[in-house]
Amino acid sequence: MSDKLKLNKKNFSEWYDKILAYADIVDDRFPLKGAFVWKPYGYKALSLMMKKMEKLLEKDGHKRCQFPMIVPMSLFKKEKDFLEGFTGETLRITKIGRRDLDEELIVRPTSETIIYPMFSLWIRSYRDLPLKVYQIVPIFRWETKMTKPMLRVRELAAFKEAHAVHATLEDAEKNFKNMVKLYEEFHSFLKIPFISLKTPEWDTFAGALYNYDLFTILPDGKAVELGSVINLGQKFSKAYDIKYMDEDEKEKYCYQTTYGISERSFGSALAIHGDDKGLVFSSEIAPIQVVIVPVSNDKIVLDRTKVIRELLEKEFRVEIDSSDKTPGEKFYHWEAKGVPIRIEVGNKEVEGNFFTISRRDDSSRHKIYEKEIVKEIHSTLKDIDMKLYEKAEKFFLSMITNVDTSGEAEKVLKEKGGIIRIPWCGDNSCGKKMSEDIVGQALGIDEKEKTDKKCAGCGKSGKYMLHIGRTC
Amino acid sequence: MSDKLKLNKKNFSEWYDKILAYADIVDDRFPLKGAFVWKPYGYKALSLMMKKMEKLLEKDGHKRCQFPMIVPMSLFKKEKDFLEGFTGETLRITKIGRRDLDEELIVRPTSETIIYPMFSLWIRSYRDLPLKVYQIVPIFRWETKMTKPMLRVRELAAFKEAHAVHATLEDAEKNFKNMVKLYEEFHSFLKIPFISLKTPEWDTFAGALYNYDLFTILPDGKAVELGSVINLGQKFSKAYDIKYMDEDEKEKYCYQTTYGISERSFGSALAIHGDDKGLVFSSEIAPIQVVIVPVSNDKIVLDRTKVIRELLEKEFRVEIDSSDKTPGEKFYHWEAKGVPIRIEVGNKEVEGNFFTISRRDDSSRHKIYEKEIVKEIHSTLKDIDMKLYEKAEKFFLSMITNVDTSGEAEKVLKEKGGIIRIPWCGDNSCGKKMSEDIVGQALGIDEKEKTDKKCAGCGKSGKYMLHIGRTC
Repeated sequence: MSDKLKLNKKNFSEWYDKILAYADIVDDRFPLKGAFVWKPYGYKALSLMMKKMEKLLEKDGHKRCQFPMIVPMSLFKKEKDFLEGFTGETLRITKIGRRDLDEELIVRPTSETIIYPMFSLWIRSYRDLPLKVYQIVPIFRWETKMTKPMLRVRELAAFKEAHAVHATLEDAEKNFKNMVKLYEEFHSFLKIPFISLKTPEWDTFAGALYNYDLFTILPDGKAVELGSVINLGQKFSKAYDIKYMDEDEKEKYCYQTTYGISERSFGSALAIHGDDKGLVFSSEIAPIQVVIVPVSNDKIVLDRTKVIRELLEKEFRVEIDSSDKTPGEKFYHWEAKGVPIRIEVGNKEVEGNFFTISRRDDSSRHKIYEKEIVKEIHSTLKDIDMKLYEKAEKFFLSMITNVDTSGEAEKVLKEKGGIIRIPWCGDNSCGKKMSEDIVGQALGIDEKEKTDKKCAGCGKSGKYMLHIGRTC
Repeated sequence: MSDKLKLNKKNFSEWYDKILAYADIVDDRFPLKGAFVWKPYGYKALSLMMKKMEKLLEKDGHKRCQFPMIVPMSLFKKEKDFLEGFTGETLRITKIGRRDLDEELIVRPTSETIIYPMFSLWIRSYRDLPLKVYQIVPIFRWETKMTKPMLRVRELAAFKEAHAVHATLEDAEKNFKNMVKLYEEFHSFLKIPFISLKTPEWDTFAGALYNYDLFTILPDGKAVELGSVINLGQKFSKAYDIKYMDEDEKEKYCYQTTYGISERSFGSALAIHGDDKGLVFSSEIAPIQVVIVPVSNDKIVLDRTKVIRELLEKEFRVEIDSSDKTPGEKFYHWEAKGVPIRIEVGNKEVEGNFFTISRRDDSSRHKIYEKEIVKEIHSTLKDIDMKLYEKAEKFFLSMITNVDTSGEAEKVLKEKGGIIRIPWCGDNSCGKKMSEDIVGQALGIDEKEKTDKKCAGCGKSGKYMLHIGRTC
């Protein structure tokens, strides 16, 4: 441990790469750009995050399935807008073993074209609706951009995609709204501040009516899309022949919604909560919530660490570090790995029948007595979570800037980053041009919020505040 | 429900396809041969099975990871025997979007060539060993054989592959034996009878020293490989440069073992335990362990079903069928879906403060009183599991036949199926010819069991009993 990890979060990109490697989250050395290896500590945290998503979806009546990963071209190309939107990034299987395929196979960039032909078989009557399923699977989008573990990848290791089918547009819209709320609840659980925006028409998901995206802001000022909720209308149901017999005995096309999140939410949480010492896990996704560190090698001390573990292990994910490192090295190591609470046990502690608790988030330390320990850990974890969120929210809000002109917007994005809000008339070509002028991406609008300022693009009456940022 | 499912397990293949569809296990209508859709009920049971495997592996010190799914050809081809063995079945990605790839990418048929380059980076010293990881992922082997859901597929939806690295051959062999035991424990958990055999040299895993496979026998007499434990020796460590610095400060190549199971174990359990009424789940993997069926629509009855659910839902997976089907239709439906226990509640039951329990495995029924219910369900599930295993084992043992000659062997395999055991001299070319003559696959030997009979192939002294069967 002589070559300690030098971290400085001001240099976010370097900090991120270094800490993910040190903390055994992902290994970026697999020799294929944009594909990463999930290591045990990272995989465990990712699983904890996904379990929460599963719980939320199951409670809402979604059922988990698993669909094939590859799709024949003839199925893939049925919805024209979708095909146009995804063709450039698809992995194409043209050969098997030593022979050429008659029909090439596409590795899924997302599963509409795989799942919807099955929906067409499964749905017969209005009694089959709504149908709500999801899966958690790898998907592949061979983007040409720079890649970054979890935040910008070519193989998404854990894409949670949900697909719902509805009898009416009203039902679809109701589900759409509920799912935006569900995603908001999920990101609150992760202690990530966010904003939910309706995507501008020119960036709407290929084949959709409209979609909402959730965004947060990374330490380097880049905006990142956390998840997307999409109203597909009847475009896919017409392409894939998904119909139902209604109560009035008429056959009708279904309405569809789809919504996805991925490990990008996880990477964002790590990026946002970390500090110069390394990661800081919020309690619910921490692979280890409490690490017990003996500060002497006396048997009486080591025995006591086991007693504490026994007290805690039914309610918390807890580990004793009994390695032969020095206490200082152990402190350093588990701080870098983001364990929310450290319990130190030495001879003084054994004699006095107390423990010293150290918080990862603010480095504060305090004594507690044995009988209070479970209650104390619970309340400390809760407080850590709250403080992590407060700190993250403060930063997030400080990075959202209202501007009146394109010049101002470009200056803010260049110097400070974050998300700017600028008055917009609502015309697509005007908005698109404005975001290009600002060298940013138009993230969307909050439809409920109107503006009476002039559009910064054309000078006509403003209608919405357009949110623009530079994305990671 | 007028067109009831006609099932007859004597026609195993038809029975299997029909019941998987009816019971929402998998849908075989995805338009790509050998790729299947996992429906919620099936996926739930599969997850319960995999959770058990995870527990067994984690307890033994294995850590879950997730590795990329595609591998550049230059990495894939490093171990020659492996390359030779798998090339014919690989999916080859030659294009991305509109452009040709300079180096083609292979979709994993198994992950040695993806994981081992990482091991080469992760392992430095003897302190890093043993290293034991696993993942549960889809893999792809485009076999030309007939396909059958779970039992013979091209996309394995849930391949649990574990990979371990050891300092010495002795450590590797010790782990090998432990993992054979672990797989045996796993299949006992599934109530599947099995036999563990050392694979003949000519069928050994490509790139391995030797391997053991576990086999069971399906109702149609076909043998099926449940899992494989493989000793790789140093072949891959030399191809992928996996070395460690030993205590004596010498750099040495590592030894490796690898072992896999998949949804095939799940499909085998369904195949073996089912009957003419449909599936019969053993308790641990049953998505629903207890179904409560009200046999009248009186409010007092419906209220009582809720009371029972409340009593049970903390300890069991339980559901009330409150649909508008008749009780008879409900019985039929849940029997087909294999729910181990049904609780019937009618006015008589409410008045007498008892319930009627019906067992899926033997259709027996008995009354129980409310205060005994939790204990009673526990012991009934246990007894069902035991009986399922006993019945399966009886069939399994009846399908293993000792023979002395090839003619006899061929006759048994043709007329009765199962696995024949035949004396063999131990010579590879003789064993291979013998299994071909018999029109079967040589499954392996039990090294500990010697024979003093003459080899049925060449007439020389017999050494082992060679096990031969026709595989699904």
